[in-house]
Amino acid sequence: MEQIDKNSDNQLLETIELVRGHLATRKRKQIVTIFQDLHAADAADVIEALSSAERSKLVKIIRKTFDGSILAELEDDVRAQIMDQLKTTELVEAVSSLDSDDAVYVIEDMEQGAQNKVLQAIPKQDRHKIETALAFPEDSAGRIMQREMVMAPEHWTVDDAAISIKKNRKLPEFFYNVFVVDPKMQPVGYVPLNRLFRHSNKTKLTKITEKTVHAIPATMDQEDVAFLFRKYALVSAPVVDDGGRIIGIITVDDVVNVIEEEATEDFMHLGGVADSDIHSSALTTYYNRFRWLFVTFINTLIASAVISHFQDALEEIVVLAVLMPIVAAMGGNAGMQAVTVTVRALATKSIVPSNITRVILKEVAVGGILGITFAAMLATLAALWTGNIVLGLVLAAAMTFNTLWAAFAGTIFPIVIDKLKLDPAVAAGPLLTTTTDVLGFASFLGLARWILL
Amino acid sequence: MEQIDKNSDNQLLETIELVRGHLATRKRKQIVTIFQDLHAADAADVIEALSSAERSKLVKIIRKTFDGSILAELEDDVRAQIMDQLKTTELVEAVSSLDSDDAVYVIEDMEQGAQNKVLQAIPKQDRHKIETALAFPEDSAGRIMQREMVMAPEHWTVDDAAISIKKNRKLPEFFYNVFVVDPKMQPVGYVPLNRLFRHSNKTKLTKITEKTVHAIPATMDQEDVAFLFRKYALVSAPVVDDGGRIIGIITVDDVVNVIEEEATEDFMHLGGVADSDIHSSALTTYYNRFRWLFVTFINTLIASAVISHFQDALEEIVVLAVLMPIVAAMGGNAGMQAVTVTVRALATKSIVPSNITRVILKEVAVGGILGITFAAMLATLAALWTGNIVLGLVLAAAMTFNTLWAAFAGTIFPIVIDKLKLDPAVAAGPLLTTTTDVLGFASFLGLARWILL
Repeated sequence: MEQIDKNSDNQLLETIELVRGHLATRKRKQIVTIFQDLHAADAADVIEALSSAERSKLVKIIRKTFDGSILAELEDDVRAQIMDQLKTTELVEAVSSLDSDDAVYVIEDMEQGAQNKVLQAIPKQDRHKIETALAFPEDSAGRIMQREMVMAPEHWTVDDAAISIKKNRKLPEFFYNVFVVDPKMQPVGYVPLNRLFRHSNKTKLTKITEKTVHAIPATMDQEDVAFLFRKYALVSAPVVDDGGRIIGIITVDDVVNVIEEEATEDFMHLGGVADSDIHSSALTTYYNRFRWLFVTFINTLIASAVISHFQDALEEIVVLAVLMPIVAAMGGNAGMQAVTVTVRALATKSIVPSNITRVILKEVAVGGILGITFAAMLATLAALWTGNIVLGLVLAAAMTFNTLWAAFAGTIFPIVIDKLKLDPAVAAGPLLTTTTDVLGFASFLGLARWILL
Repeated sequence: MEQIDKNSDNQLLETIELVRGHLATRKRKQIVTIFQDLHAADAADVIEALSSAERSKLVKIIRKTFDGSILAELEDDVRAQIMDQLKTTELVEAVSSLDSDDAVYVIEDMEQGAQNKVLQAIPKQDRHKIETALAFPEDSAGRIMQREMVMAPEHWTVDDAAISIKKNRKLPEFFYNVFVVDPKMQPVGYVPLNRLFRHSNKTKLTKITEKTVHAIPATMDQEDVAFLFRKYALVSAPVVDDGGRIIGIITVDDVVNVIEEEATEDFMHLGGVADSDIHSSALTTYYNRFRWLFVTFINTLIASAVISHFQDALEEIVVLAVLMPIVAAMGGNAGMQAVTVTVRALATKSIVPSNITRVILKEVAVGGILGITFAAMLATLAALWTGNIVLGLVLAAAMTFNTLWAAFAGTIFPIVIDKLKLDPAVAAGPLLTTTTDVLGFASFLGLARWILL
């Protein structure tokens, strides 16, 4: 277990350059030695930093001793590339060395056919664990739980627990709590290991059991699991089946990954890109970005169609064309502020039925005052510039109206989309911008035609 | 420790309504009882769900028994409101019950004067711990570490460690590792508690020590701390001073909060809002949003100034006004995709010097092909609609150029801003959009005037 950390960025960088150099000069032995000494997380970083061609060369060299835990650390797309290159026997070798939760994580994204091949080659008991986990929905507690855990019946004493831990050779390498279960195998609490030292050998476990049971149904979404861990500062929690019986545990290190993944997902979706964009091939990235941009494209076409209805007004007063983007852009940005806050509040469960009305009212109030502030500033500027006070007032009215709508819709859209079980981080932004563009252009040009022509 | 969890949303909702009802009818006793039974995290949720006026009523009722750990769970703005309302003696009472890391977290944001008052009233030993932590920079490891930890010298045996844990009454309630230190108090590794059970009493600790030391300098930024914990799946890690001596530990539950905070921060900044927006008062929200929107306002004014230079072209061919928002919007959105990916990649350290060139080339390649794809689609549509093929070609050329720029700048801007030690999530978006607007309008209208007039 004495592995060299490359936790300083410079060390890691040197290793990457070293590997790259050795790859170019085909120094196989040196490369094998480097990877034997690397922590799996660092090895994954090195592999990710290589180009696709270099990776393929590297795998040819280290394939026979490929450490399974590296696979668990890699980004999805890089992992897929490497797994494609490994033979089934090599993959089985790599996966077999992993805890059940990591093994599931590595093979859950494989194509059905390849997955079956690997599963069939895995020893029966391990295979059974993995298949049970795969039977749970993707991103559910059942997928991220590990089967390896330490349990004790309620009637045990401290001594019983200590002896059991000493003698049982199948325990996980790291664990921090002993889960206490009743005769039906339902968890009733847990004993933090340190309490076993602090009480006499004959103390009943029930006396020192932490009785807050945060039992997690195996079908619970991993996002909700992460929420519970964070809220109650949990280190590990039991996972239960429909009958409330313990079938595994989830540990905080897995949850840390979930939190990071979910945060990345929301962040990427807000910016209009797919989750794993940075490590994807240019082609995959192109395809994903195209889909997101296509929505913008339709949005702008609709906006243009709206503008084209007011060509008469634009021909008459060309300065309208100069000013109209301001109304649309300010509405869009004010709306995105409301969307951002609401999406994040939904993700962190800060919006609950009892405060929805208050949240919406606050957004509308803030949006209204913001609209009026900027409308006043803009009206003054426009009147000074064009010498036309009425034009300034028209601009101000359109902007106030559009910002108010943006604040309202920017709050309502994500909430409704969330209720429909869709992802508000994906859908709310484009939907909102379409309305603020349409309303921005239509209200300004419409008012201008009505009043000024 | 047997507290009632409100982990189901409905239970929490009922509690909120119950508290609200009791507040309206001034049933003080019932409210006190409810809060005695609530987990601090749930109590915080209830308090956050109340209106500002209700909160103030509530604090009057529970102020004498106010549980300090609730303060540690509250959002910044709500915590500030409640702490303003509590008397110094009540605050000291509440803070004294906390571990040093939570105590620091609660009082670090107080105004200097109020903070000094509270500190002076805290017993000397606790005060010293807090003051030492406050001497470290905000958001550094020294601020989130706890001083309470379990250490053992290298020459100890399993039995020595077990006896020490049994007899020392000042140990933290939860701990999972014993940190092994050399005579200079420098950490040399750690022993997971379960290993103490699995080896005979006379085994030397050095034999069962996990020797990977992830020593964290007290001045390290919490974001980097979180990165290390996530990368190496750590549960706790020693914090060291300049001389490499252990001065505290950081545990994973604190890191979970950091990850969530940092992710929220980036997400909010990408959407143009401040971190703690949802729980801020309408006035604070207004002020913060105004500052962010003001940047958009300037941006749109610049764009308008650019458009106004082409009024002659717009007067001549009014359809230019209909089509010009498309070029600007597509460039802006394509650029935001690149910004999003790059900002996240910087935050998760996926961009390193050795792959920067590759990342930029990929973005430009993808941006270029995307630009051409949409340009072709748009040119066809515009030519069909206006019957003017040359106009379609002008539109296509402007769009390709703007998208290409957006991809390049969307990658470069965040990297440069990050190098300047500024926050790319804040600055890159607005800066980029200004350039894509200006270039979008200028290239399209400029080309149109040159070729079509």
